[in-house]
Formats: sequence, C-alpha cells, structure tokens
Amino acid sequence: MSAPIDFYFDFLSPYGYFASTRIDALAAKYGRSVRWRGFYMRGIMQEKLGQTRPFLEVPLKGEYYKHDVARMARWFGLPYKSGGLSNFISANALRAFWLIDDIDREMAKRFAREIFEWHHVRATPPNTPEQVGEAAANAGLAPTRLDLAAAMQQDEAKARLRSETDAAANAGVWGTPTFIVDGEPFWGADRLYLVEDWLRRGGW
Amino acid sequence: MSAPIDFYFDFLSPYGYFASTRIDALAAKYGRSVRWRGFYMRGIMQEKLGQTRPFLEVPLKGEYYKHDVARMARWFGLPYKSGGLSNFISANALRAFWLIDDIDREMAKRFAREIFEWHHVRATPPNTPEQVGEAAANAGLAPTRLDLAAAMQQDEAKARLRSETDAAANAGVWGTPTFIVDGEPFWGADRLYLVEDWLRRGGW
Repeated sequence: MSAPIDFYFDFLSPYGYFASTRIDALAAKYGRSVRWRGFYMRGIMQEKLGQTRPFLEVPLKGEYYKHDVARMARWFGLPYKSGGLSNFISANALRAFWLIDDIDREMAKRFAREIFEWHHVRATPPNTPEQVGEAAANAGLAPTRLDLAAAMQQDEAKARLRSETDAAANAGVWGTPTFIVDGEPFWGADRLYLVEDWLRRGGW
Repeated sequence: MSAPIDFYFDFLSPYGYFASTRIDALAAKYGRSVRWRGFYMRGIMQEKLGQTRPFLEVPLKGEYYKHDVARMARWFGLPYKSGGLSNFISANALRAFWLIDDIDREMAKRFAREIFEWHHVRATPPNTPEQVGEAAANAGLAPTRLDLAAAMQQDEAKARLRSETDAAANAGVWGTPTFIVDGEPFWGADRLYLVEDWLRRGGW
C-alpha cells in the first residue's frame, strides 16, 4: 500500500477550493488516498517568505489573479463567488479542521468542503466560532462530542495549527494548494495534470 | 485570418525556453501564428512589481524553483543545463532580438532559439556583444546587413527594449513566459495545456 498523497491547503485560496473538488478522485484512480493538511498561509508568507504586501495590491499580478480565478472556476466547471481575500481570517476554521481531524478524518474533509463552500461559493467568510461551528455540524459533528467553539479558542488548538504550519514549511510547502506525492511537491491547482502524470508514470 | 498569439519572454527564464520549443507548433495546430515579443523581466519586476530580492534567495520558493526547473525539463523532454539566474544580463540579447526582428521576424525567432540554447542548454550566458553577434550569425544574419555589436549599444536599441517592456506591462504581462490569445493572458510554460484548450474551444 502506497503512502497517501499530502494535500496542503489554506481555506483562503480559491485554487485550494478548486483542487479540493478533484484531488481525492484523482488519487483514487491510481489506488491512492489523500491526507488533507490545513496550514496557515499568512504565517508562511510573512514568516518564511518575507511577503508582507497584500497579494492583490501587487500591480499587474493582482489583476491577473482576479481574472484568472474566475476563469479557472469556469474551466473546472465549479460555482464560484468570492468572500474576498481580506474578509476572511482562516485561522479559526483551520484550528477547527485539526480538532475534527483528530476525531474523524473523513468528517474533517466534509468540514473542509463546507468551509470552502461558505467562502468561495456563498461568499460568506466563516470567521466566527459560531459560523465554524455551524459548518462542523453540517459535516456531522455532534455538539456532545466536542465543544468546538470553546476548543478552537484554546492555546492547544492554536499551538497545533502553528506546528502543522511549521510541518508544512518543513516539507517544502510555500503556497496553497500544494500536493506532495512520494516526496515530490507540486504547487497549484493548475498542475493537477502533472500530479496525475507523476502518478501514472511513477515519476519521470 | 485570426490575430497572432503573442509570446512574451525574457531569455533568462528556463520556462521561457521550454515554451519557446512548443508554442509555434501548438499555434499552428489551430491555424494560428505566433508573434515573439522579448521584454526585460528585471525591469518589470523592479519597476512594476516592486520585487527587488533575487528570486532564488526567497526561502522555500527558491528551492522549489530549482527542483521544478530540472523536473519540467525532463517532462518536456528537453536538454537543460543552466547558465544561472545571476550570470546572465539578458539586455544585450533582447536589444539584438528587436533589431533582428525589424529585419526578419523568422530570423529573430531563430536567433532567440540560439540564445535560449546558449544559456539553458550549453550553460554559456551570452552576455557580450561578441557572443550575441555569434548567435545572430548562426541565425543567418549577415554582417553586411547590420553591425549588430555596434547597434545594440546605441540609445535607440536601449529605448526600443524599454518601450517593448512597457508595452508588455501595458498588455498585462508581469512574468515570463506569458501568452496572450485574443486578449486572454496565460502565464507559465506549465499552462500551455490551457492555451491549447482556449484555442480548441474558442475560450470558455
């Protein structure tokens, strides 16, 4: 049995949303599973890459990004309406992701899909513990199992997201989404065809 | 007759080299021609994007880049040995490109392929007017037709490259290679499949 494919994402990125709708089916075609790994992109951008300027404010690149996201949504055939890059602080949802992941990894994936949908389809950034809790309930988390709103505010949950983000950086991740297949990193939803080619040919 | 596809490149980028080996054949499949347009990437990075830190010095991203370039060369099935990002100031070769382009566009393409090969296959950055002149001669430029070494040092040639670089930025170009198909920009050699899909479907 081969190791799972690692799928690193931050909820903030529409490209992560696009990829999240494809990666499990793609992996399954080659008998592989996928380990979803949320990380805090802002942390890596600021602390590791030294990028402090908001992405959309970079001339030319910001305009291209806005045009491209809408176009790639059409290419993937996915509904898309953005909650905005600055309106959503994904930390709460990412902490919740790992708390749920500790209980049930499939539930964590359902939760992640919920969060992606809130932000990138319904344009409703799920910032508050209440919103995150509602997404978790929709994913099947019973309130008797975990008091998510309280747990995600605790130091342990914050430290966990920091350590998962450090682990992502240590694995070479610097952008979202990133896929790591048997140690080989691929950045970008537009590179799923290369992930597939790597799986099909066993590397090249 | 449809408008040509614009292919914006700086000789410095290995991804531009990869793309240069594919774009004309790809366009021809859809009855389209390609207009090659050299521009000075450093100018856009520094003056438009405000990026002054050398790309390879960015943590994580620089490592990914180095790994990816070698891997993509294998994927394209192309020989590759880099002359380095800091060893090559592409301005002379880019000025020469436009001087030759004014005489014969097909010769300018052959010249560009020569320069790509010097830097990205033979790892010999063609910095000097003599080296650039040799590449031009290999592309078929007779010394009686143009004194390239002298012409590329003149203010007119420098101004031309600046105006072509400004024109690229005005068209939305911020990275190399970029393809513009009927007004639609695509950045990256790894997106040729999207360029092809756009051509095949007439957009989406």
